[in-house]
Amino acid sequence: MVGAALLATQVKIILVRPSHSGNIGAAARAMKTMGLKDLALVNPSQFPDQQAIARAAGADDLLQAANCYTSLDAAIADCHYVYACSARQRHLSWPVCEPDVASEQVVLRFNKNPKDKIAILFGHEQSGLTNAELSVCHAQIIIPSVAEYSSLNLAAAVQVICYALRTAELQYHKSNTTPEMKNFAAVTACMDDDVPATMQQLQGLYQQLEQQMYAVGFLDRRQPKLLMQRIKRFFQLRPVGAKEVNIFRGFLSNVARSLDKKNTPAD
Amino acid sequence: MVGAALLATQVKIILVRPSHSGNIGAAARAMKTMGLKDLALVNPSQFPDQQAIARAAGADDLLQAANCYTSLDAAIADCHYVYACSARQRHLSWPVCEPDVASEQVVLRFNKNPKDKIAILFGHEQSGLTNAELSVCHAQIIIPSVAEYSSLNLAAAVQVICYALRTAELQYHKSNTTPEMKNFAAVTACMDDDVPATMQQLQGLYQQLEQQMYAVGFLDRRQPKLLMQRIKRFFQLRPVGAKEVNIFRGFLSNVARSLDKKNTPAD
Repeated sequence: MVGAALLATQVKIILVRPSHSGNIGAAARAMKTMGLKDLALVNPSQFPDQQAIARAAGADDLLQAANCYTSLDAAIADCHYVYACSARQRHLSWPVCEPDVASEQVVLRFNKNPKDKIAILFGHEQSGLTNAELSVCHAQIIIPSVAEYSSLNLAAAVQVICYALRTAELQYHKSNTTPEMKNFAAVTACMDDDVPATMQQLQGLYQQLEQQMYAVGFLDRRQPKLLMQRIKRFFQLRPVGAKEVNIFRGFLSNVARSLDKKNTPAD
Repeated sequence: MVGAALLATQVKIILVRPSHSGNIGAAARAMKTMGLKDLALVNPSQFPDQQAIARAAGADDLLQAANCYTSLDAAIADCHYVYACSARQRHLSWPVCEPDVASEQVVLRFNKNPKDKIAILFGHEQSGLTNAELSVCHAQIIIPSVAEYSSLNLAAAVQVICYALRTAELQYHKSNTTPEMKNFAAVTACMDDDVPATMQQLQGLYQQLEQQMYAVGFLDRRQPKLLMQRIKRFFQLRPVGAKEVNIFRGFLSNVARSLDKKNTPAD
């Protein structure tokens, strides 16, 4: 089935700074039961490790194939859309959805753009994801735990998300597309004359924008407040096309050149 | 909320012959995150145990309150309906449903008969439930894992079932909003910390952007091509907040001031 194959190749589960290698193995097992295969690790405290292999219980092929990164940016570079699984609501809030809704979004997206790559981030076992880590995300997934005791084990959270993805995928192939689903597909996709920007392309835009904002005195690096987070959220709330990124970057390059001329001697 | 309280008191999770005490603790934790509290054990190989307490991570109140039975019949004696969570289809097949459907059944049942007590059985880690154990059940729940690798960790399976129960319970208490409608609403609205920009505000941004693009030589007014149209479409395909418009306009104003300085005599 086409859809199931997409969960295997197009969804990347990223564990950010996992501290217990047993959890990495258990997460791999959870993924494999639901047909997911692409596991990535950002700065794991210990990996590879015997404890991970033991808890993987036959899913060690995922561990062997797992990519390790030294930065989150590198891990998401080839992705088009990033979810963060995080229990905490933040001061600057991100769009929040529950696992079933997020999973349906993923399945609808694949229906339109089967080459898109989706990342789902899980943070450190105790401290979760930092605000900086969250700021690369397009949306936050909150597993609807009870308020009094909301801390799922890391691998248990991975299991819930992968189960929700597989359920949405199976549902999609059962049911017909509703008008709302078509609506949703329309507003989350790029226009046909463009292709979705990768996170690497977006990050390039952010860097250039930040540089230029600083150069013209709009961004105070000692007191950045939430400016860059707001700007990232602005872009990540919408589908952004590669051509659109290029337009903004082209404009910013011209701004930089014009300002540079100011600082060179007149000819 | 009445519904949530019913999950806590009227649903009994029964682990039948669990062989790893760590799994008992992890199952208790999984239950507690979703508001379930009633854990029962049938002939656990080791309990109580330090490993169980460690993996429970704060859900040890469930372990302390857990009832231990020497027979499955005794464990389910006070229950009105029994589900068996089991991956295997049997030779003599039982009515089978997936976790979301079973959970909806449970919630609808409570709505009609809030005093009913539901049991959900989980079998031994390796061998699962025997046919004799399955035969006390009304229905079988199959978590939709992939055929090639269908073995969830015991606590991971408990997490999935408890998550499905809680999701069904929350859905039931929400209005009759479908996930598709929530999807659509989520992607077409501003975040709560902003208000939608008016067209007047957007037009102001476009004018300023056009002016600045021209000033730095990025826009050729004799050959504008589709540049401004692409930019307008970029903004208008998404909900844009008034604060977001102000950020972009503020930046563009600073760009203009920086360029102006270039053309005025040095002071």
